[in-house]
This record gives sequence, C-alpha cells and structure tokens, in this order.
Amino acid sequence: MKDNNFLVGIILGSASDLELAKKAGDVFESFGVRYEVGIASAHRTPQDVVRYAESAAARGVKVIIAIAGLSAALPGVIAAHTNLPVIGVPAGGASLNGIDALLSIAQMPPGVPVASVGIDGARNAALMTIRILSLLDNSISLELEKWVANASLDVRKSREKITMPRVPDDVYAG
Amino acid sequence: MKDNNFLVGIILGSASDLELAKKAGDVFESFGVRYEVGIASAHRTPQDVVRYAESAAARGVKVIIAIAGLSAALPGVIAAHTNLPVIGVPAGGASLNGIDALLSIAQMPPGVPVASVGIDGARNAALMTIRILSLLDNSISLELEKWVANASLDVRKSREKITMPRVPDDVYAG
Amino acid sequence: MKDNNFLVGIILGSASDLELAKKAGDVFESFGVRYEVGIASAHRTPQDVVRYAESAAARGVKVIIAIAGLSAALPGVIAAHTNLPVIGVPAGGASLNGIDALLSIAQMPPGVPVASVGIDGARNAALMTIRILSLLDNSISLELEKWVANASLDVRKSREKITMPRVPDDVYAG
Amino acid sequence: MKDNNFLVGIILGSASDLELAKKAGDVFESFGVRYEVGIASAHRTPQDVVRYAESAAARGVKVIIAIAGLSAALPGVIAAHTNLPVIGVPAGGASLNGIDALLSIAQMPPGVPVASVGIDGARNAALMTIRILSLLDNSISLELEKWVANASLDVRKSREKITMPRVPDDVYAG
Amino acid sequence: MKDNNFLVGIILGSASDLELAKKAGDVFESFGVRYEVGIASAHRTPQDVVRYAESAAARGVKVIIAIAGLSAALPGVIAAHTNLPVIGVPAGGASLNGIDALLSIAQMPPGVPVASVGIDGARNAALMTIRILSLLDNSISLELEKWVANASLDVRKSREKITMPRVPDDVYAG
Amino acid sequence: MKDNNFLVGIILGSASDLELAKKAGDVFESFGVRYEVGIASAHRTPQDVVRYAESAAARGVKVIIAIAGLSAALPGVIAAHTNLPVIGVPAGGASLNGIDALLSIAQMPPGVPVASVGIDGARNAALMTIRILSLLDNSISLELEKWVANASLDVRKSREKITMPRVPDDVYAG
Amino acid sequence: MKDNNFLVGIILGSASDLELAKKAGDVFESFGVRYEVGIASAHRTPQDVVRYAESAAARGVKVIIAIAGLSAALPGVIAAHTNLPVIGVPAGGASLNGIDALLSIAQMPPGVPVASVGIDGARNAALMTIRILSLLDNSISLELEKWVANASLDVRKSREKITMPRVPDDVYAG
Amino acid sequence: MKDNNFLVGIILGSASDLELAKKAGDVFESFGVRYEVGIASAHRTPQDVVRYAESAAARGVKVIIAIAGLSAALPGVIAAHTNLPVIGVPAGGASLNGIDALLSIAQMPPGVPVASVGIDGARNAALMTIRILSLLDNSISLELEKWVANASLDVRKSREKITMPRVPDDVYAG
Repeated sequence: MKDNNFLVGIILGSASDLELAKKAGDVFESFGVRYEVGIASAHRTPQDVVRYAESAAARGVKVIIAIAGLSAALPGVIAAHTNLPVIGVPAGGASLNGIDALLSIAQMPPGVPVASVGIDGARNAALMTIRILSLLDNSISLELEKWVANASLDVRKSREKITMPRVPDDVYAG
Repeated sequence: MKDNNFLVGIILGSASDLELAKKAGDVFESFGVRYEVGIASAHRTPQDVVRYAESAAARGVKVIIAIAGLSAALPGVIAAHTNLPVIGVPAGGASLNGIDALLSIAQMPPGVPVASVGIDGARNAALMTIRILSLLDNSISLELEKWVANASLDVRKSREKITMPRVPDDVYAG
Repeated sequence: MKDNNFLVGIILGSASDLELAKKAGDVFESFGVRYEVGIASAHRTPQDVVRYAESAAARGVKVIIAIAGLSAALPGVIAAHTNLPVIGVPAGGASLNGIDALLSIAQMPPGVPVASVGIDGARNAALMTIRILSLLDNSISLELEKWVANASLDVRKSREKITMPRVPDDVYAG
Repeated sequence: MKDNNFLVGIILGSASDLELAKKAGDVFESFGVRYEVGIASAHRTPQDVVRYAESAAARGVKVIIAIAGLSAALPGVIAAHTNLPVIGVPAGGASLNGIDALLSIAQMPPGVPVASVGIDGARNAALMTIRILSLLDNSISLELEKWVANASLDVRKSREKITMPRVPDDVYAG
Repeated sequence: MKDNNFLVGIILGSASDLELAKKAGDVFESFGVRYEVGIASAHRTPQDVVRYAESAAARGVKVIIAIAGLSAALPGVIAAHTNLPVIGVPAGGASLNGIDALLSIAQMPPGVPVASVGIDGARNAALMTIRILSLLDNSISLELEKWVANASLDVRKSREKITMPRVPDDVYAG
Repeated sequence: MKDNNFLVGIILGSASDLELAKKAGDVFESFGVRYEVGIASAHRTPQDVVRYAESAAARGVKVIIAIAGLSAALPGVIAAHTNLPVIGVPAGGASLNGIDALLSIAQMPPGVPVASVGIDGARNAALMTIRILSLLDNSISLELEKWVANASLDVRKSREKITMPRVPDDVYAG
Repeated sequence: MKDNNFLVGIILGSASDLELAKKAGDVFESFGVRYEVGIASAHRTPQDVVRYAESAAARGVKVIIAIAGLSAALPGVIAAHTNLPVIGVPAGGASLNGIDALLSIAQMPPGVPVASVGIDGARNAALMTIRILSLLDNSISLELEKWVANASLDVRKSREKITMPRVPDDVYAG
Repeated sequence: MKDNNFLVGIILGSASDLELAKKAGDVFESFGVRYEVGIASAHRTPQDVVRYAESAAARGVKVIIAIAGLSAALPGVIAAHTNLPVIGVPAGGASLNGIDALLSIAQMPPGVPVASVGIDGARNAALMTIRILSLLDNSISLELEKWVANASLDVRKSREKITMPRVPDDVYAG
C-alpha cells in the first residue's frame, strides 16, 4: 500500500514552519511512506484549506498532520472538513513559546477531535501517523518494530558518552 | 442609520454561550441599535460560518462579535471570510477558566486581525462595537456620551454603600 | 470487523476517572464499536499496565485511550509498550484543573508519540478513535458521516433557543 | 476622506516601542492612510495622555492604537478619555514575554472597552484599524480587498519554498 | 499624629471590593489610625481618581492603598498623580483568580513605583501601611510591636487545635 | 527503632493546614511510626521555627515534613536550620490553587535542598518519609512492601466499579 | 536627616544580584540618600539575615530593599525580624524568568507584609523607598518633585526619536 | 559505609542531560560518596528502567536521582519499581523552560511518592541525597556540617564583590 499513494498530508499554516515539516518528512522517508507537503493558512487562504481537507480522503491520504503556531486554528479547521484523523503540531518560537498554540490545538470543543503532540513535536506527529498506518499495512508495522528497536539501541549506545562512574551494562540486562 | 438594519451580528460557537450574547444584546438594546444573534460552529457547521461571514457586509452588518470558548477558532475564521471588524469574546467557564480562549483569540497570526476583549467580556465587546458605530452615526455618538456619563454617575452613587469613614464628595470634585 | 472484537481499550489510571470513560464509551456504543475498559496505574500497578499494553494488539485492540490526571504518566507508559496508536485524555478536577496533566501527556519527548486531546476530552478521544477505525472499516466511515451530519443538525436546532433577534435561517444556507 | 486628516493615532508608552509603531505605520502607508505617532506615558506624563485622548476626535482621529508593555495601562487610560475605538498592542520583550501586557490590556473591567490584538501584534492592530476605516470610506474598503487578495497570493507563492514532495496546485483550486 | 487626620486613603475601583477594604479598615481601627475609603474608577471616573490623588498629600494622607481587580490600572494611575507611597491590592474573584490583577499591579514600568501585596491581601496592605506610619509616629511603632507579639501568640495558641501527637511546647522555647 | 522516638516532625505554617497534617499522620499511624505535629510560622513565629529545626536531630527526629501555602517559605527556612531531610508540601486552597506554594517550595536556590511533593500531597510526603526511614529500619521496609502490595490490590479491586465492558482479569496477569 | 545615616539597606540573597542593587543604588545616589548594600542568604546564612534585620531600625535604617530570585524567601524572612517596611525585588534571569520569585514575594500569608515591585524592578524599589522617605524629610520630597518632572521631560524629549509623522507638541500641551 | 558501594544512582532519560548529572556528581565527589550514572528512557527503554529500579536496592543503592525533561515520566516510573527514595530533577531547556517537567514530577498521584527539586536543580538533588545518607552514616553527617559552614563562608566572602557602600561586617556578627 505505502508505495502507491501519498498516504500523509503535512499542511503548514506558514512557510516559516517548513523546518518542522522537514522533521516529519524525514521520518516518513526513513519508513518509505509517501507524503506531501502543503501550505495553506486557515486565515489567509481559508478556501485552500477547505479544498485540501475535503479532497484529501478521495486522493488517498490517510492522515493529515497540521502544523501551526500562535492561535493555531489550522488543525481544527482541517478536522472540520474531513473525517480523516488530524494530528496537530503546535509550533513554538513566538512570544509565548508555543503554549498558546498547544492550548489552541488541544482544547478543541467536543464534537470535532484533533490529536495534539507536544510543542514543535513534528517528529512525534510523524511517528503517531506511522502507528496509525501500521494498522492498515503490515509492512509498515514491521518496520515500526525495527524502528523502535533502533531507538532503544540509540539510548543504550548513548551511555558511552558518560564520563562519570557508569551503571554496569548487565544491570539493565536483568 | 441605526433603525433600519441589523448593524451588529453576534455569533456564538455554541448555545451554551447564549447568556454572554444576552449581555451584549442588552447593551445594544439600551442604545437602540439593532442586532442579530446566530449560532454557528467553526468546527461542526463550518460552512454556515463561512456563509454568514461572507454575506454579512452585504446585508448591512457593520461589526461582528464572535463568542467562543476553549480553542475558540470562531472569531478568526469569521475574520478570514469578511473584511468587517470582528471582535472576539473568550468564553470562560471551562477547565482553564478561559485563558485558553483568550490566547486563541488574541494571538492571531499577522495578516488577519481579531480584536479581543477580556474573558466573558461580552458587555465590553458591545461597547467597543458602539464606539465603532459612533464613527458612522452621530446619534449613536451622542448616546454614547450619555452612557459614559451615566457610568460615571453609577460609580459615584456606589459610594453610598461605603459604611466606613468616607472620602468627602468635594475631594473628587476638585 | 467492528462486531467481532474489542477494537478499543480505554485504560484509566484510577477509578475516579470512570465518568470520563463513560463519555467515551457512549460514543463507541452509538457507533456499535466494541470497547473494553480497564483500570491500571502506571505507578501502583505498573506491571498490569505493561501486560495490557503488550498484549493489546494481539487481542485485536486497534487504538488505546488512556485517561489520567495530575502527572499523567499512563498514556506515555502504554505507548512505550505497544506500537498501537495511543490517545491521552488529561483529567481535570485536581488543584491545577488539568493543565499539569495536559502538559504531562502532550509534551512527550521525541521518539514515542502520544496524541493528546483537551482536558476531560474523553468524548473527542473517542471520536478521534472512530476516525482512525474508519480507515479500517468502511461501515464505521459511513456512520461517522451520519454522526457528523447529526452534529451539524444539533447546532442548527440549537438556534431555536435564541430569544433575541435571530439570524434568518436562509443566511446560513447560502 | 483618507487624504485630508490624520485618521489614526499611534501612541506609545515609551520610545522603546518605536519599532512596533513602525510595523503599524508601514501598513497605513501601504493603504495611503495618514497617521500620527506620539509618545505619552500613562504613568510619567499622564496629563499628556489625557490631552491627547480628549482632543483626538475633534482633530479628526478615528481610531487610536496604543502600544505598551509590562502593566500596560496606556490603552485603558486612553479609552477612559475618549469615545473613539482604542486598540491595544501588548509589547513583549520583557521578563514575562508580554503575557503581563496582554492580560493588562485584555482584562479591562466592564464599562470601558479596549480591543486587544496579540503580543507585538502592531501589524494586526493596523489591519483592524483599516477594517474599521473601511466602514467609513469605500476607497479604503476596495484597497483592503486587494490587500487581502495579495496576502492570499503571498501564501500561495510561498509554496515554492517547499523542497519536499508538494501538494499539487490544482488540489487547492478545487 | 494619628488622631488628627485621615492618614490613609483606601481607594477601590469598584464597590464590589468593599469587603477587601473592610479587612484593611479593621486593621487601622485596631491601631486607632484614621482612614478614609473612596471609590473611583481609573476608567469610568478617571478625573475623580486624579483629583483624589493630587489632593491627598495636602489633606494629610500619608499612604494610599488602591484595590482593583482584572487589569487593575488604579494603583498605577494614582501613583502617577501623587508622590505618596501607593500600595496596590490585586483583587481576586474573577476568571483568572487575580493573577491578571497581580501582574498589572506589580509589573509597573520603571519610573513610577507601586508596591504590590498578594492577591486579596488587603490586610497585609494595611500592615505595610502601619510599618510606614511607624516611621513617623512612635506610638504607632509601639502598638505595632504589641500587634506582632499578639500575632505570635495567636500562632502559639492555635497549637491547641492539634489532635495528633504534639511537639512539646518547650521545644519552641529553646 | 520506630517505637522509641518521634521519628518524624510535621510542621505547619498555620492551623488551617491541620487537615493535610492528618493525611500524613494517618500514613504514619498505619506504619506504626511515631510522629509529632507542630505549628510554627516562618513569618509570625520565626524563632520557634528555628528552635524546632535546630533541636530536631538531637531529639531523634529523622525527617521533617513542612506544610505551607502561598509564598510557603517554611520548608526552606527549616532546611536552613537543620541538616535533616526536609520534605515540603505546597498547600492549595488559596487564589492560585497552590501553584505559588509549589514554585516557592520547589524552586530553592542551590545550596539548601528541599524536596517538594505535589500540591496538597501530604500523603505522598508521608510515603516519601517512609521510604527514607526504610533505609534505617528493616521492619519499616518490610511493612512498606506490604503497603505497596495493598495499594496494587486496591487498584485491582477498584475494577469492580466498572459497569462498562471490562478488560478480562487474566490480561493483566500476563 | 538624609546626610547622617544609612537610611536604606539593600540586601541581596546572592552576589549574582549585584547588578540589580546597582540600579537601586544609582537612584539613591541621585537623591543624595545614603544606603548600604549587604549580602545575606535566607538559606545559607540565615543568622546573618536575622541579625541584620533585627539591628536595622536601631542603626537608623528606615526601609529595607530585599532582592532575591527563585523561591525568594529573603524579603519575607527579613520582614519577620523587623517592623521596618520591606520592599521585595523578584530577580529574573532563571528558568521561569522571575515569575516564581514574584509569586514567592507577593503572595505572603496574612500577618507579615512585604511590598513587591516588578521582576528586576530594583529601580522602582528605590523610588518607592524615596516616596516613603519623603514622608520623613521634606528635602527628599522636594527632590522627588524635581525627579518626577525630569522623568516627564525625558518622555517628552524621547519624541524626537520618532521618524514617522509626529503628533504636534501643542496637542499634549492642551 | 560510603566507601564500599555505589550509594547513589543518577539516572537520566537522555544523554542530553549529562551536564546536569555532572553537577550532582561533583557534589558526591566532594563528599567522597560513590555514585553511578545511567541512561534509561521511560519511553524508549522502559525495561531497562524497570530492571535498574528493581535491582538497585539489592545492589546497595540507597537513593536514586532521576533527571528528565518535558513530560518527565522517569522519576515516577522508577519510584513505581523500587521502594528506595527517588528524587526527581526537572530538566529545563525545552520550549516551556522546564515548567512542564516540574509539574510532571511534582504532581504525582497519591500512593507513589517522588520528591522534586527545582528546575535544573541537580546540585540540590545531590545535597538532598547527602542529607538522607547522613542519617545512615555519621561520617557523611560530619562532612555535611563542614559543607554547610563552607557555604555560609562563601556567601560572606562574596560580600567583597560589593563596590557600593557596604553593610559593616559586625552587623551580621550580632
């Protein structure tokens, strides 16, 4: 499944969030999952947002990641125009360091859900997407298992950076 | 001017905010300014919001007051679909007492403005609207002057409630 | 698909959150989606949490909703022991009204994702789950469309509660 | 109308906010709307503030933008001495990044309204002012339409910066 | 000195804060210090505030306590019109529990000082005033010493309420 | 060891926190650990605080729990006058719901440590104390194991309250 | 009076706050008011704090300024050991930018007052002190009047920095 | 006792917190207390965390310091798998400057205690640990007394940095 279609849409409220999109895109590339990146503002190009959201499912998109800062209406507006799962990424960097965007994204009124990850959490948004896609495609599921094992390995390898007395490796091994 | 048209639209994200709308409506009634109240959710009936916003100016509406709680996307979405001035009222009452709604409304990204009043500040939203309408209609302007004078009088009358030693009235009179 | 299995696990950190679980359960019942409810504390019964998380996928669970208040480690700990999508619900009600739980759930470090909904947002967590399940089962998808249409209808019907001058219905109809 | 008068007064509590005033001024210049900039402190030159506020309407000013940081009393004090619409801009940059100024400006007690934009939101304050002036002068209204169209265009053009797989342009076009 | 004059002015932004004024007044009465209570709003009766502040020193007032909630401009505005020490009391009770008023009062820009006590801290504002008056009048100073000794005594007496194993009294006695 | 001495001192800044002390005392009683409760204010009876802190170790106290609200200086002041471990309990209930007390207790400057538990967390403060005492007395350690097992049991028993479809018990059992 | 004695004590919790002390000292020097600067930590040298506080009045000190960051117990501890007015300065610069210190200083429990200025507000603390000393010494009062006039002048002069269209000077002059 | 064993385990959620571990380690080295440093993530290597926690007591560890940022589940998860005292260090440096980690660590639900120090407070975590170890080993207790005396000395020596008029040394000496 994952080779034929753009399975994931990453939509940004502004080009200034492209670096966050890149973090998500890197995850999808390491999984071989095709994705597409768009820029559409809930306030300056609202109709573009609506058209993207309304056409996404028919075009084969399964999950939409919406990245926005400040009052961050984008994820909610997208969720209002599609029944696909929408994951919101609050972008930090402005005066309030993203707490405004986090509250705007997470505190959706009942009826239309958005799933928020942490501030600047584009990488986790991608991994959440991978978890959802794993339900659809066993090959992604298998790669996710490898990915998780590698993440554990990275933590273990990082112990070599400790220059103080170290916990012996066999302690963790049980 | 003020007698012919609905000059003000008060739009709520949910019927649960009707009490706040009433506070604004009371102000308009005391000014004899016609207004209309609608309910349209940025997330559950987004097209209704768009249609209201897009048609408002042509129907004679001059100012839109949008009342919403939680992630409160409504004022911004309305502002994206009209060039009329939009005043946002963050509704309190939920877990975070309205600080989420205040940030969602005030922290709009540059390009599409919303003017926020305080949490549950429907009365002030109406008075802000009256100030704007005063620019258009001298009779509203004259009534506003009376209103302001009455507000001062109310403060002065409230001094009678003081049961402790009171500042003599002539002190304030200069 | 939806009739054969518990597709959704709702796990609570404490029996005091059962009312929130009920809100999610009501949604699943209206969709005819089978779910199961468990109580397991990340701190007092950590092994129960691990066993539930590790066995969930094999038992047919597709999405786990984890509800917890205060420092709310539960969703993250579950996500560490399964590759299923995990949706966290920050429970309010304690001293800080749930902002502690929201930050604990949303601000996951990169590598293990949790999707947070708003404070006490169990209903939205269920609807997010339904969106994910819709990707797997077209019949759920069709019911979601009906549900969304009904939600719009509810908003429109709520306009009858307005006792002030009302926006004419044809305005919203375009 | 717009060529004859200073239609807008931008008042700063301190010269340290001149850069924010410049952002607002740039907007007015692009609209050909005449404006004036003043510095008057609610605490260090309170009488200058009162005189400015009290004389503004008679001098032809239609809207006052007040920019202030920290406890930010300026917008409210101006609003107490004029019936013109007052838009407050909370200035960031101090220890609390402007959240103090935002609360001071937005949380006005009922009776005297101030409309707050976001932290450092001088540009949006200017655009809010333009929306109000549009009610008075059709030529401003027409230019605002062009401005909004250009803002949409800017968003669309910014898509060229995307170096990842891009959403095809026709998706947004419907 | 303390018998001849109103030494202290307690000014409220609104009659709704009279209960806080009472707490301060009770302290002054127990010290036999004459005080006066006034209501004047920085926004609705700004000239009354100015006149009170400007005439206070000449009328014999030594310290002004200003009580206000929400954006709480009152203490700062008073301080702008007198060189007397001004103590601000942030009033709680509104949506944000007084954190807005605390920031508005404490975060004064450099040049015009206001001394803030805690939220609803009218009693401490009175005691701070007593400390200042003690510098002027030795009899107040002597009574303050007694007051402080009594406060210690009250703490010690409150130990009788302990129904659990109690720390022996001689431990505290050294 | 635990039968001979007051091993734990619970010091309150005010009698209004006696209910919190009771929560801690109940834990100690269930462990058979002797404790004593005192009231001494860092501000109103500072010398009593100092004398208690300075004499505690010699009297056999091993751990001090200090409970205080608002600016909550008590735990830090005690820690400045003893080398015993001091656990601070931020008391909620005032305007800011204890976030002020939590910051005051947790954010100690480097050099003098206080260990903070959560807001109103007297029960956890007692359990933290029990963990420390376990290092000194094996019988306490054994009882702690039982206590922890019982806490797990309580979580498991609470599953009977679930009236929705329940996770089968054997799932948790592995 | 002002020439004979140290009228003001500035006490820091740590040498890292010397720059803030300098800001206060500069004010005192411009007024010719003698002051003294000390370093004493409420936690690391608590007895030094007590001795300073207890001896200050007898040594001629009239007002104590206490500067501290983080949990900032210093002002309250000093206030517990003297009946002189104590002004607290919350020092910013640490992780939470001084909001912790502000709450610790402002939120004193009833009975022992501390007057807080804003974060890093050492200059305002000095000016508050000058206001208090003005009550004692008419020559300080006269200099304060000059100082205030100069501060107004500084604001007016700063208008020359405006490079945009300027409010005419006669507008402020009434 | 202190020479034979690793008495303290410092566990980090990520190698990025090694600098904080160093601050704690430096304290232990100055006390001659042996410690060990490990890296184990509550989310990426949860089993390593469990194994470390479950084996720590048997290996001679007396106190565990757990350092983590963001949602900071690590200290609580460790505390769930050992009955040793666990001290949590909230790591700052991310978007919210550590307030998220502080709340996640401090606001533990009742039943499983964690003791939190301040943000980035690794040094205080070590000193808290030393206080606990002092209960077990008199030689550590004696060194702690010296350490505390030195800390006082450092404060006193820092007075030499004052370039303004200084409080005479004999004032502090009583």
